[in-house]
Amino acid sequence: MKPSKTATANPPIHLTPRGAARIRAGHVWVYRSDLKDQKPKAEPGSLVAVLDEKGRILGDALYSSSSQIAIRMFAVGREETYAVELPEIVSNRVAAAISYRDEVLQQTEACRLVFSEADFLPGLIVDRYNDILTMQVLTQAMDREDLRRAVMDSLREHFPNSTIFERVDERIRELEKLPAKESGVVGKPQKGNAKTATIFNMNGLRFHYDVSGQKTGAFLDQRENYAAAAQYARGDALDVFTYQGGFALHLYQNCRRVTGVDMSRPALEVAEENATLNEYNLEWIEANAFDYLKDQSVGGRAYDTIVLDPPAFAKTAKNFDTAIRGYKELNLRALKMLRAGGTLISCSCSFHVSEADFMEMLGTAAADAHRRVRILEKRNAAKDHPILMGVPETNYLKCIIARVD
Amino acid sequence: MKPSKTATANPPIHLTPRGAARIRAGHVWVYRSDLKDQKPKAEPGSLVAVLDEKGRILGDALYSSSSQIAIRMFAVGREETYAVELPEIVSNRVAAAISYRDEVLQQTEACRLVFSEADFLPGLIVDRYNDILTMQVLTQAMDREDLRRAVMDSLREHFPNSTIFERVDERIRELEKLPAKESGVVGKPQKGNAKTATIFNMNGLRFHYDVSGQKTGAFLDQRENYAAAAQYARGDALDVFTYQGGFALHLYQNCRRVTGVDMSRPALEVAEENATLNEYNLEWIEANAFDYLKDQSVGGRAYDTIVLDPPAFAKTAKNFDTAIRGYKELNLRALKMLRAGGTLISCSCSFHVSEADFMEMLGTAAADAHRRVRILEKRNAAKDHPILMGVPETNYLKCIIARVD
Repeated sequence: MKPSKTATANPPIHLTPRGAARIRAGHVWVYRSDLKDQKPKAEPGSLVAVLDEKGRILGDALYSSSSQIAIRMFAVGREETYAVELPEIVSNRVAAAISYRDEVLQQTEACRLVFSEADFLPGLIVDRYNDILTMQVLTQAMDREDLRRAVMDSLREHFPNSTIFERVDERIRELEKLPAKESGVVGKPQKGNAKTATIFNMNGLRFHYDVSGQKTGAFLDQRENYAAAAQYARGDALDVFTYQGGFALHLYQNCRRVTGVDMSRPALEVAEENATLNEYNLEWIEANAFDYLKDQSVGGRAYDTIVLDPPAFAKTAKNFDTAIRGYKELNLRALKMLRAGGTLISCSCSFHVSEADFMEMLGTAAADAHRRVRILEKRNAAKDHPILMGVPETNYLKCIIARVD
Repeated sequence: MKPSKTATANPPIHLTPRGAARIRAGHVWVYRSDLKDQKPKAEPGSLVAVLDEKGRILGDALYSSSSQIAIRMFAVGREETYAVELPEIVSNRVAAAISYRDEVLQQTEACRLVFSEADFLPGLIVDRYNDILTMQVLTQAMDREDLRRAVMDSLREHFPNSTIFERVDERIRELEKLPAKESGVVGKPQKGNAKTATIFNMNGLRFHYDVSGQKTGAFLDQRENYAAAAQYARGDALDVFTYQGGFALHLYQNCRRVTGVDMSRPALEVAEENATLNEYNLEWIEANAFDYLKDQSVGGRAYDTIVLDPPAFAKTAKNFDTAIRGYKELNLRALKMLRAGGTLISCSCSFHVSEADFMEMLGTAAADAHRRVRILEKRNAAKDHPILMGVPETNYLKCIIARVD
């Protein structure tokens, strides 16, 4: 295999044996400590040929001069980058990501159109909310003018009547040593004016979306899990960590009564706006989830359906034990409050807590609660957030649907 | 908690600390080596109170005088068995199992109605194929006349117009030291004569069913996976280990051409009969799957959709390494033959190969094949084969649906 046409402008980057082994095992990130020369002479954001410790070509990667993830593979063991210029490849990959969603998703006006590594476009995220597309640029490479243009052109071609809004994470621009920038509209629709707020349909429900980030109520990676949970929901339902009401609103149609609990008042205000939009009548409670569950449990409350969708408790591997204790407390309390034949929908978005860990935690919670728990579905993120083999970080979301007797 | 009304006829069974810990962790089987007295004075098939090493009550269990699994928990930490007689509990649990399917299954004329431990009826399996129910009795307890009658009465009440056919596994009756018995009709429909063959609908397809066991073409635990696979299938499809054509027949509607491979000619004959029943035209090839994949691969054949659904390679934990090698060879060859954008549906029903093991195997196969593999769905057995928390043996089936670029 030959190095890429565009990659040849830079001297190739040599990996340590450990770095090379990682790439051969299918991962796409190499940390700076796994580069032979940790300060290579490559342009920030450029395409570079990547060689193993013996000088054999592994593929081409995008280089960052400042991130701890020094290179992100862009073409592993393939010849694609040799024939075509980089912006054209990026543009083709954006088109492929969009057509992939067309193939695998059921009708929805909201989805993640481009999911970074999982769409072979490391450092780029694009979400669609009806006629607003939001774009996030996370690396030096994706911030290059020519690549930005390639992305924008491809998005505009497929969604000519959408506004493209760039969401800027200042912290990431600092880490990547990119010039400061503000969030804002970067692409206007062919007809009419740019929009910063819209309404979108998802699973038959309507949601507000506002680029300010205050209004959505929907986590796109949970989209299919919302719909699955709704199928089993009935009776009295409790949605713990409801945030902007994503699960709660979905449960509503099949339940007698739905309560959403969150400690953020602004989040609950968005939840209520979405409830109003759908003419739904839910109860929102501003409370710490642990305290609320404890109070309800002590008070002898019972439910037919409980959703637990906490934020990631294990942000790093070090938090593992604390995270498991947190998950167990929540699940134990929920199990005890469920009526016989009730449904538990229990989620974790902690990458550091594997599905096996999560299942084990749930098993001990079930045993401690003296409840018989049967798993109906073990679900993951929606199909617009695919798991890329070799990159375990993309396999982060667990959503267990269980029947509790 | 008090011992059961019916359990008091026998002296209680004391467990070793290890046996008690196992029950407390949620498992429902205790091996004979974990009984304090390995030859307790309990009637074969009777309900016995189970105590831990300190004499504390753990619950009630069904006892087998001959199986290595000496007791199977029937009521763990609950008082249910204290109030009611055993046959009535069994009858109620059969009814609960049936109503649970009514709740969670989409319209289908074939499903597992009772799945042993997962329906809290250890030793009993009942499958439904339209108007034929097949029953399997696997323990001394479930062979008791009063419990058989309870099961039969409950089944007849819910399916008055079905034939109930008992499938006897001679080997199991020998192990359980039960008198020899032949398979045969044990329950006739209210109207008309008993049937030993029928046709059932599943996912919109029609299948022959014959109690002789030669005609079905459907594995009930894969029912939902068949339907899921069909959604992604297109172009040229190959179903390896097709057996009686379960996946192949489902792929047909969305594919240009479907080939099913199996080394059993009688199985392929059933597959062809089912194809005829649906007026489908598939190609069936009698071959060893490994040899066939190798030949096709060497011959440069390409496919858009490949299903791998091999029998359990790891029947025991000892076979683990051999099993992984087998899975890897199959998956590596399949990955290499898939066209870009193709779909791999890769299954394993080996309990001893966990989902994490299976994913790791697939990751190395993807890396070795230099293919980018994205997981669209990680699926398990259909909802009529629920996973019982605490009993890892019930979590055996993996079905990964992946997009291969």
